[in-house]
Amino acid sequence: MTNQTESAYFDIDQITAPTPTVDQYMRDYVASASLPKNLIDAIDYALLGGGKRMRPILVIRAAEAVGGTIEQALPPAAAIELIHCFSLVHDDLPAMDDDDLRRGRPTLHIKTNEAMAILAGDAMMSLAFQLLLDRIPDETTAAKIMSELAVGTSAMIGGQVYDTLPDFPSDLTPLDQLKTIHTHKTGALIRGACRMGAVAAKANDEQLAAITTYGEAIGLMFQIVDDLLDITQTTEQLGKTAGKDVEQDKLTYPAVLGVEKSQAEITRLLEVALGALSPLGNDAAQLAQIANYLAVRTK
Amino acid sequence: MTNQTESAYFDIDQITAPTPTVDQYMRDYVASASLPKNLIDAIDYALLGGGKRMRPILVIRAAEAVGGTIEQALPPAAAIELIHCFSLVHDDLPAMDDDDLRRGRPTLHIKTNEAMAILAGDAMMSLAFQLLLDRIPDETTAAKIMSELAVGTSAMIGGQVYDTLPDFPSDLTPLDQLKTIHTHKTGALIRGACRMGAVAAKANDEQLAAITTYGEAIGLMFQIVDDLLDITQTTEQLGKTAGKDVEQDKLTYPAVLGVEKSQAEITRLLEVALGALSPLGNDAAQLAQIANYLAVRTK
Repeated sequence: MTNQTESAYFDIDQITAPTPTVDQYMRDYVASASLPKNLIDAIDYALLGGGKRMRPILVIRAAEAVGGTIEQALPPAAAIELIHCFSLVHDDLPAMDDDDLRRGRPTLHIKTNEAMAILAGDAMMSLAFQLLLDRIPDETTAAKIMSELAVGTSAMIGGQVYDTLPDFPSDLTPLDQLKTIHTHKTGALIRGACRMGAVAAKANDEQLAAITTYGEAIGLMFQIVDDLLDITQTTEQLGKTAGKDVEQDKLTYPAVLGVEKSQAEITRLLEVALGALSPLGNDAAQLAQIANYLAVRTK
Repeated sequence: MTNQTESAYFDIDQITAPTPTVDQYMRDYVASASLPKNLIDAIDYALLGGGKRMRPILVIRAAEAVGGTIEQALPPAAAIELIHCFSLVHDDLPAMDDDDLRRGRPTLHIKTNEAMAILAGDAMMSLAFQLLLDRIPDETTAAKIMSELAVGTSAMIGGQVYDTLPDFPSDLTPLDQLKTIHTHKTGALIRGACRMGAVAAKANDEQLAAITTYGEAIGLMFQIVDDLLDITQTTEQLGKTAGKDVEQDKLTYPAVLGVEKSQAEITRLLEVALGALSPLGNDAAQLAQIANYLAVRTK
């Protein structure tokens, strides 16, 4: 499917092209781990629900945007997806969001049991770090990538606490609360994905700064779009329950800023993201496509 | 308290001397993390229950045994205790061991709630890796230490699965099942503690091999002693429920080998541990004390 307007071009098949390679790489690594068979099966199940693989794709395209290869990007791509999927497994637990279904399949604690889901999530985090060390021969590069991964993971967990167990200072405005939630919960790992790709490809400081600006802009944009889709799309269109945010009285961009200003913010962030890429030239064409797609996605 | 016999000498005050330094170092690091206040409080609570700090002490004494300093050892010492404490928080959850008390205090999910306990455990793992990168300037050393930590953590989680959700091949003998559980569940992180200390102090290959042999021997010994204490001590003496293993029909050393052979195995492992230290000379005196203590501890 190709979508072309004056402002936005993307080819979704091109965007998602690396997905099977990432999936295979992750499966191979997990299968090689010295772990109980039932734990490996549980991790495999959690990894392979057919997610969008947005984070690993960003790692790969960010590496290419600074002159690197998919081979350099695969270890961080797999590691960040392990982290993302671990967070989904724990978020689905009864004590958290208590979700029985994810992408049409039983969630891991329903498929196995709660203890296994807790332990499989834990193991996925630890395997993410182990993978980077096993698969990146240059220890300096591995350490730099692990630093990005650890910072992004801690921030994501912090964001989940801000979102579900909020304890903000009373003088923080709703908009600042919202920004705090989003920059932590989804923003940090999207930013981290972009930076990990660039670091894996040994980006110079200017390249890394450009990729960071891009990653921060699309990270926030992704979440505002998510907030809008929750109120504009049906459950059928989304493939998950629509209208949940309003029902749960959640702090969202449309709730705080209104729909129009939220859409203007998406347009502004898309411009920031695309502007940041311009010094990288044609190597960044894939990252530009991803930004265009994320701005107009409908699910 | 000093305990001296012909075979065993230790001074418990000397063994535990580094504990306040480790505790302060961990608290300072956690307090400095860019995380929600309630999450930091939860982590702080989980860290400071007055544990034995066996793993960080092993890191520090292993570093000293190969000519290193406590300053080199503190980052891995704090990191491994973060991992150990995260595993206790998750193990205590209702879906796992469902423990309301740990060392006389409410467990974290009782003190806060289950969601917070899951997330605090997750954050402690991620902070452990982040700490190593933040506090060890030499990236090559940081990467080597992180590799030990990741391998040990994955093995520990695998061990918890082997122990609580066993799925062994039917031809594996009870003794081999037991060894698989113990080398993973407690052995890997104790071995890892010793190796992390040695690596932080830039041990040479011979030194690292000696420390590894020591770590593997005391790791298994620690667990056999634990199994024996469960049947020989009272709940009051242990500070935790005694007799739980028999009640739950658990695979333990006394159950598989009998008490006498289990005690002989402790003696043998202590000799292996002490023998491994002899090339390290007087620098390893503290590690020898720890082995002697672990062999005869009564709680």
